Amino acid sequence: MTDSPEPAPARRLSRRHLLLGGAAAGIGAASAVGIQLAGQAGEPSASRPAGDPETGLNGALTVPFHGVHQAGIETVPQGHATFVALTLHDTVDRDAVRRMMVVLSGDAARLTQGLAALADSEPELAVVPARLTITFGFGPGLVARAGGEAPTWLRPLPAFGVDRLEPAWADGDLLLQIAADDPLTVAHATRMLLKDTRSFASVHWVQSGFRRAPGSERPGTTMRNLFGQLDGTVNMVPGSEDFEHLVWRQADNPAWLAGGTGFVLRRISMDLDKWDKLDRSGRESAVGRTLATGAPLTGVAEHDEPDFAATTPIGFPVIPEFSHLRRARSENREERILRRGYNYDDAPTGASVSDSGLLFVSFQADVDAQFVPIQRRIDTLDLLNQWITPVGSAVFAIPPGCQEGGYIGDTLF
Amino acid sequence: MTDSPEPAPARRLSRRHLLLGGAAAGIGAASAVGIQLAGQAGEPSASRPAGDPETGLNGALTVPFHGVHQAGIETVPQGHATFVALTLHDTVDRDAVRRMMVVLSGDAARLTQGLAALADSEPELAVVPARLTITFGFGPGLVARAGGEAPTWLRPLPAFGVDRLEPAWADGDLLLQIAADDPLTVAHATRMLLKDTRSFASVHWVQSGFRRAPGSERPGTTMRNLFGQLDGTVNMVPGSEDFEHLVWRQADNPAWLAGGTGFVLRRISMDLDKWDKLDRSGRESAVGRTLATGAPLTGVAEHDEPDFAATTPIGFPVIPEFSHLRRARSENREERILRRGYNYDDAPTGASVSDSGLLFVSFQADVDAQFVPIQRRIDTLDLLNQWITPVGSAVFAIPPGCQEGGYIGDTLF
Repeated sequence: MTDSPEPAPARRLSRRHLLLGGAAAGIGAASAVGIQLAGQAGEPSASRPAGDPETGLNGALTVPFHGVHQAGIETVPQGHATFVALTLHDTVDRDAVRRMMVVLSGDAARLTQGLAALADSEPELAVVPARLTITFGFGPGLVARAGGEAPTWLRPLPAFGVDRLEPAWADGDLLLQIAADDPLTVAHATRMLLKDTRSFASVHWVQSGFRRAPGSERPGTTMRNLFGQLDGTVNMVPGSEDFEHLVWRQADNPAWLAGGTGFVLRRISMDLDKWDKLDRSGRESAVGRTLATGAPLTGVAEHDEPDFAATTPIGFPVIPEFSHLRRARSENREERILRRGYNYDDAPTGASVSDSGLLFVSFQADVDAQFVPIQRRIDTLDLLNQWITPVGSAVFAIPPGCQEGGYIGDTLF
Repeated sequence: MTDSPEPAPARRLSRRHLLLGGAAAGIGAASAVGIQLAGQAGEPSASRPAGDPETGLNGALTVPFHGVHQAGIETVPQGHATFVALTLHDTVDRDAVRRMMVVLSGDAARLTQGLAALADSEPELAVVPARLTITFGFGPGLVARAGGEAPTWLRPLPAFGVDRLEPAWADGDLLLQIAADDPLTVAHATRMLLKDTRSFASVHWVQSGFRRAPGSERPGTTMRNLFGQLDGTVNMVPGSEDFEHLVWRQADNPAWLAGGTGFVLRRISMDLDKWDKLDRSGRESAVGRTLATGAPLTGVAEHDEPDFAATTPIGFPVIPEFSHLRRARSENREERILRRGYNYDDAPTGASVSDSGLLFVSFQADVDAQFVPIQRRIDTLDLLNQWITPVGSAVFAIPPGCQEGGYIGDTLF
């Protein structure tokens, strides 16, 4: 934890500086933190920092709030995340939206550095930042209220055949993504931010998820979902070729979003009971990968390139035509996204023994050009659809980061 | 993670052996794990192990399943816990209860050691035990079904004036306490165990809670609840004087429960919005302790002995008569319990900005003699009652541990 904020970065920083500053920060510029830029790694690539060098505690680690981009995107995914969508009160006008974002940004800047929020009612809970990041997203309603121009993709996704969307999990005016390696930190930050928004907005939905705890596994291990699959093997890696233009918005259309990105959250219910009835080879065919290592059925290691031309002795493709691996993959290198999802596991009701699934989260500069074609291919023919059902869907524009003294969304006002 | 189970301990082990075996196990008998037996420490005292000596990973740590007592009681509290209460199907007879406990015990023994359950449908999720413990408790219905004699206190607690109990959170036939430092581990183990019980019982309630993540704070730090209070400063410490007879059941009444204990779970809703309206000195008076350090208002450090006789210059007690500290404390040294609670923070609905509270969990040899008098004093006069409301309540008998080849509850059959 640092008591003084990081020096305000210049508006243009090198990619290397951004990565070091954004993904592994708060432990002092001099410390040797291994940021792996290996192009083949599945998860956003930086290894999870090993702990504060003075105390050895993960809880003391911080990620800078201020910068060219918002934190919580390139940041190595934390163990816990809560996503909140808010609906603006009818009375909230352009100036009220601005005031709300000033208050939220100020508290987010403090909380992420391990400092109490301005009107923090439980300041003792703020002292363990645990790599807390707070990321804001704007729905079409908020952009309209602020009188801004929305990017063309900022609207509900097109209807997909597999969808069974519930309005309770759909859309929203303002998104909060609150993520940290400590669940108490997430709970406290969520409450402080919702106190800030109380005069301006009501809670539409809250979705919480988890990954492996910090220190459970080797850094860089791809997350497993509750089907037991490695989830996110094919992923964009901060610092890799194309990341800059495929994740971050460039200078126009609209100008206020330059340095920002697009956000998609799909709440995907996973029918574990039905999945259990499928044998192991059936599962591996559905995915196109082995369950044990995540290797393509034509390979031996997780990040081996799949050989889509390979056939079995009797002439069938080794990686089935309708497998998830084949359907999710595009020939078009522009159709790639940064995935940053979380598992959810809510209390089962009635005869079911689980209510589980995936909070599929992706960041991409252009939702229509990158996310939608992938989802269309999956929607049409993907064996996995027999066991998964999208029940929630939301799209937000993620504004760029802000400098000290600024606030998230200030380019819109 | 160990592939081979620990050698079966003899039925009577020294307290020291039990502590080392039960609370800090699976990392090899030779490794120097600091088990602090300091009588003043708040939390069950052993420090959290620092990680597997070979890999440095918390996820590889295991706690033995077999032993004189069940694990998950003396075990240093893990970061996450899920509590499940089940209702036996009407058709389940004595022999079916026995068969269910054989199956559950076998899978619990495997899962806690990082091995897949016997019919594990996602064996890849079993490889990170992360100090997983699985603890079973029997409600009066199960004991009756098994034809056993119930201890006198195995019944719903007496009604307290503060209670606003909801049947959805009350009682049950079989309790599962599933706790680990990794939430994915808890999710997988919960599902595997609920698959085992599916033919015998249905889910009555599921309650999940959290503490600080492993590595967030110094080991031995007392948990803070969502009011920001240090919660559990006064607690029994494994290995301390009186622990043996105040926590563990002795040889009779009934005999099958010797080496077991009594379990109380109270779901305590905390009205954070109302709490926020109270100023800091009002909060500290309500609790009788400072918020910053948890010290009694007459002291400077968390574990200072409170001076109940101290008065202010104008003659009022420094620690108010109705403070939680004074009401929860007994002159009778037999009225002590082992607390092992978790915070909960569910999604808020409507205008509220949080649905939060405490899963108060305590272990004691005699619920009527130890827990009830404390709760009676709190019920009568405790300022904290203005902000907290018990909404759930359950009592279970925790059978002793079992040896390899045995099963939990085998003393009942």
